[in-house]
Amino acid sequence: MATERKSALEEKDGVLQPDTINTSYIEKLKSKRHKQPSTEDLISGILKGDITALSRAITIIESKNPAHFEKANTLVTNCLPHANNSIRIGITGVPGVGKSTFIEVFGTHLTGLGKKVAVLAVDPSSSLTKGSILGDKTRMEALVKDPNAFIRPSASGDSLGGVARKTRETIILCEAAGFDTIIIETVGVGQSETAVHSMVDFFLLLKLSGAGDELQGIKRGIIEMADLIAINKADGENLRSAKIAKLEFNRALHLYPKKSSDWQPIVLLCSAIKNEGIGAIWEQIQEYTLLVSENDYFQKKRSEQNKFWLIQTIEDHLKSNFFNNKEIKIALEIQLQLIEDHKTTPFAAADYLLGLRFEV
Amino acid sequence: MATERKSALEEKDGVLQPDTINTSYIEKLKSKRHKQPSTEDLISGILKGDITALSRAITIIESKNPAHFEKANTLVTNCLPHANNSIRIGITGVPGVGKSTFIEVFGTHLTGLGKKVAVLAVDPSSSLTKGSILGDKTRMEALVKDPNAFIRPSASGDSLGGVARKTRETIILCEAAGFDTIIIETVGVGQSETAVHSMVDFFLLLKLSGAGDELQGIKRGIIEMADLIAINKADGENLRSAKIAKLEFNRALHLYPKKSSDWQPIVLLCSAIKNEGIGAIWEQIQEYTLLVSENDYFQKKRSEQNKFWLIQTIEDHLKSNFFNNKEIKIALEIQLQLIEDHKTTPFAAADYLLGLRFEV
Repeated sequence: MATERKSALEEKDGVLQPDTINTSYIEKLKSKRHKQPSTEDLISGILKGDITALSRAITIIESKNPAHFEKANTLVTNCLPHANNSIRIGITGVPGVGKSTFIEVFGTHLTGLGKKVAVLAVDPSSSLTKGSILGDKTRMEALVKDPNAFIRPSASGDSLGGVARKTRETIILCEAAGFDTIIIETVGVGQSETAVHSMVDFFLLLKLSGAGDELQGIKRGIIEMADLIAINKADGENLRSAKIAKLEFNRALHLYPKKSSDWQPIVLLCSAIKNEGIGAIWEQIQEYTLLVSENDYFQKKRSEQNKFWLIQTIEDHLKSNFFNNKEIKIALEIQLQLIEDHKTTPFAAADYLLGLRFEV
Repeated sequence: MATERKSALEEKDGVLQPDTINTSYIEKLKSKRHKQPSTEDLISGILKGDITALSRAITIIESKNPAHFEKANTLVTNCLPHANNSIRIGITGVPGVGKSTFIEVFGTHLTGLGKKVAVLAVDPSSSLTKGSILGDKTRMEALVKDPNAFIRPSASGDSLGGVARKTRETIILCEAAGFDTIIIETVGVGQSETAVHSMVDFFLLLKLSGAGDELQGIKRGIIEMADLIAINKADGENLRSAKIAKLEFNRALHLYPKKSSDWQPIVLLCSAIKNEGIGAIWEQIQEYTLLVSENDYFQKKRSEQNKFWLIQTIEDHLKSNFFNNKEIKIALEIQLQLIEDHKTTPFAAADYLLGLRFEV
């Protein structure tokens, strides 16, 4: 650190070194600290639709700092009564299917209709260093600049459960801020599709045009979750194969029993890059909303989702609490080896392990 | 109770009434009690292939009397080193598909090839009063009389977990008794197919001939579990529609990614009642066994199944232990109502409930 020294022994003035502490920055930081809005300010900001307040509140929700947990709860609890007035749409598809382009064009279509669109992501693999699905916002140039759109990358977290919780709470904040269309993007990593399916009203599966072998890559269970399959890049030379794919997917959809929503999932062709077929997809989502509002499935599903997340969160905690216990970890390895050696059964081993922590 | 009375007041002999207590029966019962074989006797009996000992041991395993639990554990632990030398085949299909006839013909085919066949069932809906899938043994007349076949109805139990445990342990006893082919039948009740899939090496789905609408009834996820789909009753006038169904199922199977066993599931036609196509099914199972023995998937899958049942049993206990707690039950209802009223979130509610029993 360079400082000016005054001393009787001094013969010559030294050269003044530049201060390595940027005092103006510190001043700025200090003033910012003073200006850090209160939770009340953030809430009233969100309810007024202030995007800066919304962003800051989401940052608090995503924070891993325990000091922020209570603040986050206050934010969510106060936004809750103003939430729930939206359609939540999940969008999934393998990398390369054109999700970013689709969401850009689809979102712009919706804001053009007067909608307020929030785009979130669930990507447990993302982190600050690795970036997330929506991290590269340059891929959604038009939507980023759109005043009626709000784009937020995936929360980073160690577990899908953590990311899911933060996303669910972010949805509430976005809805309280007046966003009436929530799009939640996910890439098929682990169980993230199931998590997203459990937090949306409508689930859209994006597929690539192309028949035969290209159909093979479908992850188990995804087709049955879909309310609509949109075959993207259905243009030019792809159009023929896209039509074949449409037939095949329609057949596949008919293999499943009727959904409890009474909705019959359909397959549509689209080309996001040419802005073709986008309006038809939105029309189907509106038809769906009409159907499930009339037959009360919309509210029923949201109630079930709430119950699901409540139970899921508790179960996750019970499991991690047990299996992360040091004694259990060691004993479990030993029991697994005994099972391999045909010296005990899984059930006897379970009884033994439970006995270490409970009176069974 | 009629007894002979001798008295000075007696004027006339009464008519001797038949004794309402069958003393010879009581004697028999007493001698039987004395003869009740020891656990050691049962084990050595099982290892000699004694069916009576096997049946009695299974009854002890199925017993809900806590006094039998330790005996059951001893039985299983001692049979374990002699178990595991079999192929375990799961068979499922909706009622009416002809499961009983199929198993009768299939099992007789196998004993004809020198196999020893045990037929078990997983049917959590069964109880002593309601009877179980295999309860009506008259439907498998030939197999019941076959000295190389052993048929045992489903254990009755309150929970699928309980029935599954008893069936898994019964498999061990049957294998120790020398049965090299274990058939486990299930009807699609709740999650029973998933449970059976998790305890067998090969999963066979029986379907009815008939195309189009008849395909609709497939329960989600069943097709992807199947290693082979056999379309039964493919005879006479049904043959044409059975061939169409075969095509459709083959298409459906190709929609799923390759199995980790490297086995490509296939669709075959059969007619159990006409004994047609049964040999071909067994040949496929043998081909499968060859493949998964060579690529080590056979052992890998059994290890994974063991781990699955260990973890599953522990998790089931953790959950029931928490959610069956009286205080939690009441608090859970209150929290669910608060969620419905948008006064709390599922996550805050979970934190609260966990806090009642743990330090969160």
